[in-house]
Amino acid sequence: MNKNVKVILDCDPGHDDAISIILAASEVSNLEIEAITTVAGNVEVEKNTLNALNVCDIVGLKDVPVAQGAEKPLIKEREIAEEIHGDSGLDGPSLPSEPAKKAVSQHAVDLIIEKVLNSDNDITLVPTGPLTNIALAMIREPKIIPKIKEIVLMGGGTFGNWTPAAEFNIYVDAEAAKVVFESGVPIAMFGLDVTHQALATQEIIRELAVIDNSVSNFVVELLQFFAKTYKDVFGFEGAPIHDACTAAYLIDPSIFELKNVRVDIETKGEFSYGMTCVDSLHVSGRVPNVNFAYQLDSDKFWGLFTNALKSYSD
Amino acid sequence: MNKNVKVILDCDPGHDDAISIILAASEVSNLEIEAITTVAGNVEVEKNTLNALNVCDIVGLKDVPVAQGAEKPLIKEREIAEEIHGDSGLDGPSLPSEPAKKAVSQHAVDLIIEKVLNSDNDITLVPTGPLTNIALAMIREPKIIPKIKEIVLMGGGTFGNWTPAAEFNIYVDAEAAKVVFESGVPIAMFGLDVTHQALATQEIIRELAVIDNSVSNFVVELLQFFAKTYKDVFGFEGAPIHDACTAAYLIDPSIFELKNVRVDIETKGEFSYGMTCVDSLHVSGRVPNVNFAYQLDSDKFWGLFTNALKSYSD
Amino acid sequence: MNKNVKVILDCDPGHDDAISIILAASEVSNLEIEAITTVAGNVEVEKNTLNALNVCDIVGLKDVPVAQGAEKPLIKEREIAEEIHGDSGLDGPSLPSEPAKKAVSQHAVDLIIEKVLNSDNDITLVPTGPLTNIALAMIREPKIIPKIKEIVLMGGGTFGNWTPAAEFNIYVDAEAAKVVFESGVPIAMFGLDVTHQALATQEIIRELAVIDNSVSNFVVELLQFFAKTYKDVFGFEGAPIHDACTAAYLIDPSIFELKNVRVDIETKGEFSYGMTCVDSLHVSGRVPNVNFAYQLDSDKFWGLFTNALKSYSD
Amino acid sequence: MNKNVKVILDCDPGHDDAISIILAASEVSNLEIEAITTVAGNVEVEKNTLNALNVCDIVGLKDVPVAQGAEKPLIKEREIAEEIHGDSGLDGPSLPSEPAKKAVSQHAVDLIIEKVLNSDNDITLVPTGPLTNIALAMIREPKIIPKIKEIVLMGGGTFGNWTPAAEFNIYVDAEAAKVVFESGVPIAMFGLDVTHQALATQEIIRELAVIDNSVSNFVVELLQFFAKTYKDVFGFEGAPIHDACTAAYLIDPSIFELKNVRVDIETKGEFSYGMTCVDSLHVSGRVPNVNFAYQLDSDKFWGLFTNALKSYSD
Repeated sequence: MNKNVKVILDCDPGHDDAISIILAASEVSNLEIEAITTVAGNVEVEKNTLNALNVCDIVGLKDVPVAQGAEKPLIKEREIAEEIHGDSGLDGPSLPSEPAKKAVSQHAVDLIIEKVLNSDNDITLVPTGPLTNIALAMIREPKIIPKIKEIVLMGGGTFGNWTPAAEFNIYVDAEAAKVVFESGVPIAMFGLDVTHQALATQEIIRELAVIDNSVSNFVVELLQFFAKTYKDVFGFEGAPIHDACTAAYLIDPSIFELKNVRVDIETKGEFSYGMTCVDSLHVSGRVPNVNFAYQLDSDKFWGLFTNALKSYSD
Repeated sequence: MNKNVKVILDCDPGHDDAISIILAASEVSNLEIEAITTVAGNVEVEKNTLNALNVCDIVGLKDVPVAQGAEKPLIKEREIAEEIHGDSGLDGPSLPSEPAKKAVSQHAVDLIIEKVLNSDNDITLVPTGPLTNIALAMIREPKIIPKIKEIVLMGGGTFGNWTPAAEFNIYVDAEAAKVVFESGVPIAMFGLDVTHQALATQEIIRELAVIDNSVSNFVVELLQFFAKTYKDVFGFEGAPIHDACTAAYLIDPSIFELKNVRVDIETKGEFSYGMTCVDSLHVSGRVPNVNFAYQLDSDKFWGLFTNALKSYSD
Repeated sequence: MNKNVKVILDCDPGHDDAISIILAASEVSNLEIEAITTVAGNVEVEKNTLNALNVCDIVGLKDVPVAQGAEKPLIKEREIAEEIHGDSGLDGPSLPSEPAKKAVSQHAVDLIIEKVLNSDNDITLVPTGPLTNIALAMIREPKIIPKIKEIVLMGGGTFGNWTPAAEFNIYVDAEAAKVVFESGVPIAMFGLDVTHQALATQEIIRELAVIDNSVSNFVVELLQFFAKTYKDVFGFEGAPIHDACTAAYLIDPSIFELKNVRVDIETKGEFSYGMTCVDSLHVSGRVPNVNFAYQLDSDKFWGLFTNALKSYSD
Repeated sequence: MNKNVKVILDCDPGHDDAISIILAASEVSNLEIEAITTVAGNVEVEKNTLNALNVCDIVGLKDVPVAQGAEKPLIKEREIAEEIHGDSGLDGPSLPSEPAKKAVSQHAVDLIIEKVLNSDNDITLVPTGPLTNIALAMIREPKIIPKIKEIVLMGGGTFGNWTPAAEFNIYVDAEAAKVVFESGVPIAMFGLDVTHQALATQEIIRELAVIDNSVSNFVVELLQFFAKTYKDVFGFEGAPIHDACTAAYLIDPSIFELKNVRVDIETKGEFSYGMTCVDSLHVSGRVPNVNFAYQLDSDKFWGLFTNALKSYSD
């Protein structure tokens, strides 16, 4: 198990982002959450910030600053995923419109730059939404690039869920993804190949419901809503909690198998814009830049997750 | 089993093209080979034609016309795959430089047009190389389009072998592929997802060697060379006989599982040029145009193939 | 003045195509018209063929074969320019629906291939429509490429008339244009830079009307219609007879100033698809492939044209 | 003449940037220079900053803050133009390596955001380098967009000088240009069409040499170097002082003729990346977004410029 990993969670909650925060904030976690930053993605950034604050209230993250970031992608127009996450971005549970916790006034990008510049090169960025904030921080202050320890992200895959070739997070801001993937920072990538294995089936949801504390019940409500949209839109029997793979990996890397490959971001394609081109067969001759997760140990994953939920008490 | 399927084999032999011809010409096959046409692909078209003629001599295809076609892709420069198939395109066995059989003087494209126009709409085209000839025939004489029964092709996949995103046949002439995939003709597509399942392992090669007739011995020599390059280039333990999936499907469709999906050809991408964008999750909203093979029954496949080789006697 | 130039006029008449044929067929012309071939462009290919036959009847081109060619571009969907040329492609004069002259049954592409292969390398191709036929002939029979003397074409320019960046002929089939411009055949290019100088103003039209023979009257009717659509669509005071620049150049090259430059065809652009990228400042470092016309001597041009019309008698 | 125009000069000096600052800072100018910001462009941003400070020293701009900005384009790799401007970016005159004036520590992008947010919507941005800083400010703080009065920029044109289709400033960061041109802010664009008319011929340089004060002598040295590289690289007889058109326009708009057109930035093209697609014939159907300068009154321009230089005394 990793010890004392300092992380900034850059997210667009989002059901699976929320669940990832809950996992990261649990007592089984070794993660020190330096900040939570939000970005336009699943829904508008203001809604994502509101959701992040509500999740912080639920899990008791009182001292972690929450900072709002980019309201649209670098170059493209904004695109959101309301049909997956509902109008609020976190449909399912009923949540207060005025969370107790408040966001800081600092812009997410400035907070990321400040935290990384002042760090001992020991901060891991954990983006689970579009990569706009991360890219913007790198463009605005290139000095952070050699100081980021690692980027552990949810995005991409060898197939798509928003277009046939592209996953939502990368598609929404492929130019930002290009900046990040070409930055030289070590990247661990959790794409659809592995996040579709993190499938909360109805059976798993029923088991989680047995835990029956306020946090686990909140998670169950999220999963029920999320499973329903995945059934309606994709015909899935369950809800893949994509983003939680990042936190799970940082808590216990042995849950996943990864391989070192080249991944390039397609920003010109007609049908494949936003694709992560994964060079699994090593035919490109390009230097590997990504630690690509392709296999999840389901028992270990749900074991960790169950323990995390149990660690919350009312 | 299908009955009396009239086919034109459009190919660039090539080890697996040769094996596909051998399967199609065997006594267990129900295919009536109307013509064999060649195209620039694995190696230069003249070499592919020479190889096709030699294969015809070996399996006794005396009356089938062999016509040479396009020497380069429609728009792009030519690209060949000598590192996979050797300098001759059929390295391994030793073959005569002057086959007994001769090619007809008619251009492949004219032969395809003539055969299809004069048919009872019952000819299936079976391209196992780049789609240049097929596209050129459609462009030159659009009247053939509604008269083609089906196109059963080897090409593409949800991943690549020539670039991270693109398979060789489609990459070499993506513009031709675009013409064919957008033509409206019914397409059964055998891409890398399924052809990598048609893997002649060393164990299988040893079993085929036991058959010990002139044709089977030729096949074994082909497979030994092909397995070696696949080991060297891709690290495979065996030789995937990609193209033979097309003939196998036409002889016994029950070997494969297919699904009806949209496939679009990427011709603009920076990293994904020549990719077949397969809409497995039906997120594009575009009308399905391809019957996409994704599963092969290994026992049935090798059973058919073994019987085909046994049907040849010396 | 050039002597005995053998030409194949590949066209999509089209007002200015028709006028170019009339110039080429006049007694002041030194051109030997080997064939007229038609292509989809201004309107559908069947209409273009009908118009070509009618023009042949009007100017008495009895022995020149007219062959119909491609009905759509190589890769793209067809696009036509009815708002410029009217529904018939030659609106203005009234023309018979059954011309006396008939097209040959041979396909335009086959005719071009045959003529060039059988030539003493002395045939100049004169495309004044999309380059589909010429590219298709080159793809189908690459042996013609070194035997074509020159291609004198109307198309492209440093600005566009169909999109901000692209001229109609090149835009309609940019992939075909790419094949032709990269073929290595000497090209003289008459694009919008120079063809907009070939402007039949109302004053010029009035002067031409004075000639008053059946051919000149036909031309005047064409110009009146064409000037009206150029006024309506582009706000021009007159009708640019683009295509006639090609014939004028072949009859009297001294009418034009040309320079040797690199021209590349954009086939990937979002806003510039179909653009001819003209390297006037020689910054690309690429080998010049085009003799680019940029200046027209108006007096000489209209002098030649007037003499050409006067040479027709009733 | 415009009164009291507040400007931020965003530049990459660069000979013509320097000359533009000198014009803007002269006594004939009505411009209130709120700040000078620098960006990677003609040379590395550090050199551009050094050059800007030296120019400020020369013209006595003591109170104007100079802030350094982006060191590379948003998405692309950096590209510089040393062959045009020399290694220092301002080769020709000899300049101190330690200017008296110092840059402020604030990042250019933060300074732009702060100035615009705190303004009465009366600040005009005057970018004469790549548009990286301006785009980055818009992305980082979209609230500035409706508060910018106008953007008066040097860039683009209907032809290129860095590639056949693209001018240097736009080519270097076409993604930034796309952000700016699609922002909705009023844009006056001074591209190569008009800046090549601002040509300092040898005759003009000789006339400017007669003025003989320290600033005019500095300008003459700049022009002599710049004219030499324009002669060597492009074969020009003189030096086009591109960037100075922006200041000249803001001082006396009557020097120029402009028209309202649509301009789109090409970011996908193979040969036309970084092109400004200018819809002069209004064929795109897209809403005009640019006031496009196409004509310069040479007498007025050099008259203004001469007076500006004369206004400096030693």
